[in-house]
Amino acid sequence: MSSMHEQIEEMSRQSRVASRALAVLSTEKKNKILLGIAEALAEQKNFILQENNKDLETGRLKGLSDAMLDRLALSDKVMAGMIAGIKEIIALPDPVGEIAEMVRRPVGIQVGRMRVPLGVIAMIYESRPNVTVDAAVLCLKTGNAVILRGGSEAIHSNLALARVMQDVLKAEQVDPAALQVVPMTDREAVTILLTQEKYIDLIIPRGGEGLIRFVTENSRIPVLKHYKGVCHIFVDRDADFEMAIRVIMNSKVQRPGVCNALEALLVHEAVAQDFLPKLAQVLSAAGVELRGCPRTAAILPNVTKAQDSDWGTEFLALILAVKVVPDFAAALDHIAQYGSQHTESIITSNYANAQRFIREVDASAVMVNASTRFNDGGQFGLGAEIGISTTKLHAYGPMGLKELTTQKFIVYGDGQVRG
Amino acid sequence: MSSMHEQIEEMSRQSRVASRALAVLSTEKKNKILLGIAEALAEQKNFILQENNKDLETGRLKGLSDAMLDRLALSDKVMAGMIAGIKEIIALPDPVGEIAEMVRRPVGIQVGRMRVPLGVIAMIYESRPNVTVDAAVLCLKTGNAVILRGGSEAIHSNLALARVMQDVLKAEQVDPAALQVVPMTDREAVTILLTQEKYIDLIIPRGGEGLIRFVTENSRIPVLKHYKGVCHIFVDRDADFEMAIRVIMNSKVQRPGVCNALEALLVHEAVAQDFLPKLAQVLSAAGVELRGCPRTAAILPNVTKAQDSDWGTEFLALILAVKVVPDFAAALDHIAQYGSQHTESIITSNYANAQRFIREVDASAVMVNASTRFNDGGQFGLGAEIGISTTKLHAYGPMGLKELTTQKFIVYGDGQVRG
Repeated sequence: MSSMHEQIEEMSRQSRVASRALAVLSTEKKNKILLGIAEALAEQKNFILQENNKDLETGRLKGLSDAMLDRLALSDKVMAGMIAGIKEIIALPDPVGEIAEMVRRPVGIQVGRMRVPLGVIAMIYESRPNVTVDAAVLCLKTGNAVILRGGSEAIHSNLALARVMQDVLKAEQVDPAALQVVPMTDREAVTILLTQEKYIDLIIPRGGEGLIRFVTENSRIPVLKHYKGVCHIFVDRDADFEMAIRVIMNSKVQRPGVCNALEALLVHEAVAQDFLPKLAQVLSAAGVELRGCPRTAAILPNVTKAQDSDWGTEFLALILAVKVVPDFAAALDHIAQYGSQHTESIITSNYANAQRFIREVDASAVMVNASTRFNDGGQFGLGAEIGISTTKLHAYGPMGLKELTTQKFIVYGDGQVRG
Repeated sequence: MSSMHEQIEEMSRQSRVASRALAVLSTEKKNKILLGIAEALAEQKNFILQENNKDLETGRLKGLSDAMLDRLALSDKVMAGMIAGIKEIIALPDPVGEIAEMVRRPVGIQVGRMRVPLGVIAMIYESRPNVTVDAAVLCLKTGNAVILRGGSEAIHSNLALARVMQDVLKAEQVDPAALQVVPMTDREAVTILLTQEKYIDLIIPRGGEGLIRFVTENSRIPVLKHYKGVCHIFVDRDADFEMAIRVIMNSKVQRPGVCNALEALLVHEAVAQDFLPKLAQVLSAAGVELRGCPRTAAILPNVTKAQDSDWGTEFLALILAVKVVPDFAAALDHIAQYGSQHTESIITSNYANAQRFIREVDASAVMVNASTRFNDGGQFGLGAEIGISTTKLHAYGPMGLKELTTQKFIVYGDGQVRG
């Protein structure tokens, strides 16, 4: 038995080899494979649920929380959702092969850019085994080989899902190394994976801040990630109150546990006195705890006093930090200091402020008069997303199929040489 | 006096602060600054040459080679070239602010992508002080703050150039922290810079393979780089010999010391017997040493025998490795194994092979019937380049102004919430 290092290096090498053939598959062939996977998951449901049960069993013995077990469980409903997701991805256009910006240069060569797969993508994630299928299908659709490394709690589920998908690849005469699950659950396996820069082109971590930091600090391979979503809404002096309350409610309450939920509210001092009591009434009725700055507390005496640590905190719960700011510039300063470059929104009826907010705020999505909850691949029309990037290189915001590809330059000449 | 770590962290923090104001400057203002820099460099030429002389003096005492000293020297000609380069960059369109792909989503929000600066870019490079000006000007044009860390041999020149450019920023009421040269020449300063992920968005290393590896292995910040250019030309069975010889000569001989020069030639066995003697005659006359595989040596008895280590080597000299391959697929396999994803070219008159080569070869530039020397920002029409990336994330190939920017999502709503 070879060492873990040798095994992971060999997996990575095989993935690179498989990626060459995958890169040139036709869209028709790739969609046929995806359809095969959707069908095989339905047919092999009993086997998958049985393996998933082993993980649930172990999880219960280990004392995982109900919430954790719920994320781990592959119910009929989750399976149906996965299969429906594959069919949506089949229907999306394939970005690979698209040629853009073709120009004729003075010397006579034609130069353009052709969209191509990245090559080999490694996903490192926690629990939810449906990520195994989502990520595999997005990578295959874009002609990328994929190495999946889920959490140890889901190892039986992930290996079962991989086996079902690999059988489809084999039946379609595609190298099954195109889609692999790392069978080792040690953290060391991740460390080794992160140094396979010779074979792997991109690392996508999904999980808690600890995982993301670990990956960033140990990777020699480019990483696309977001740490957290500390999203703000700024209620400008010219805001429509009714609209502001509706958008804030939706941003905070509709699904508080996700990264594009609202965490902090900034209110222009000119409207704070009128606006905050109306807002507090609606939010309190929805069970939202407000944590206010001193000026907020002066207007809403029953509010919890905000601590310094509340600014820039991702609560992921029905808690909202509220700050009264003296002007527009102070709102931008607060966002620049405490925002996480995820999603920022302004509520205003002032044209100049709307345009200035859009231009000056640095975040993956900057909005006017819209709920922060819209920052999502599906909502933005990308079709499906593999994550949201808050780093600016390569992708900033939701990453869809296009973001799993790159562009190479192509040159058609007829014997030109450089002078 | 604070520690080096504190100083570099403070420089990085100030750079981040400066980047906010820089990001929203108008194109007109940015061009005014660039013109001011061009004029100031001309006016301050004596001061700059005097500081450059200190570096040259030290270099001579240290025993730097004539080639190194030549790269270090800021002659009148180099200064004039730098100034002309700035004027070219002024004339280029500013990518910042461009809005693309704006669509109206079913819920009524308008979603698009706005091109914005990356933020703070750190350049880590060796010798040539003109890089200090080139890089600064490209970053300023795209609204990015820049931290420059050149080689220790050029420290007086770099600090002088930075001072002249910073004076222009001050005169234009722009925070001079937007453009800084790291004054410490210790390698530790680089290590510290590479961990300022809180403030720096991108690292661009330029230099030898050792520097690039050091940066990649130590950076927590995304890195755009190329290690080396091992460029191939494949002479297909249907190649026009005259064209092949012309393109090979240009690729190998016109400027052998650069990354887009030809290093290895693959020849289809069906034409090797006829083609290689004709080629060898022309290359030998130009002083090129051929290193041949056994089948090449059988055709050209006087050729040096290639060692295994010659495949995949970047000679940067008048040396060419030559291999006879049995077919098209073997050529692709050789390139996949030994290429550096920089530039690959095929000489063929066969339509299907041309298209297949373009599609299947994985390199930043893939060419048909054209010299590898064309892989260059200027030649491709990007106007000016800050480097060539052979990593696929964010940029693949020459990086011009657009590659120093990213796109954020922008959303215009009128009160929409997510259902």
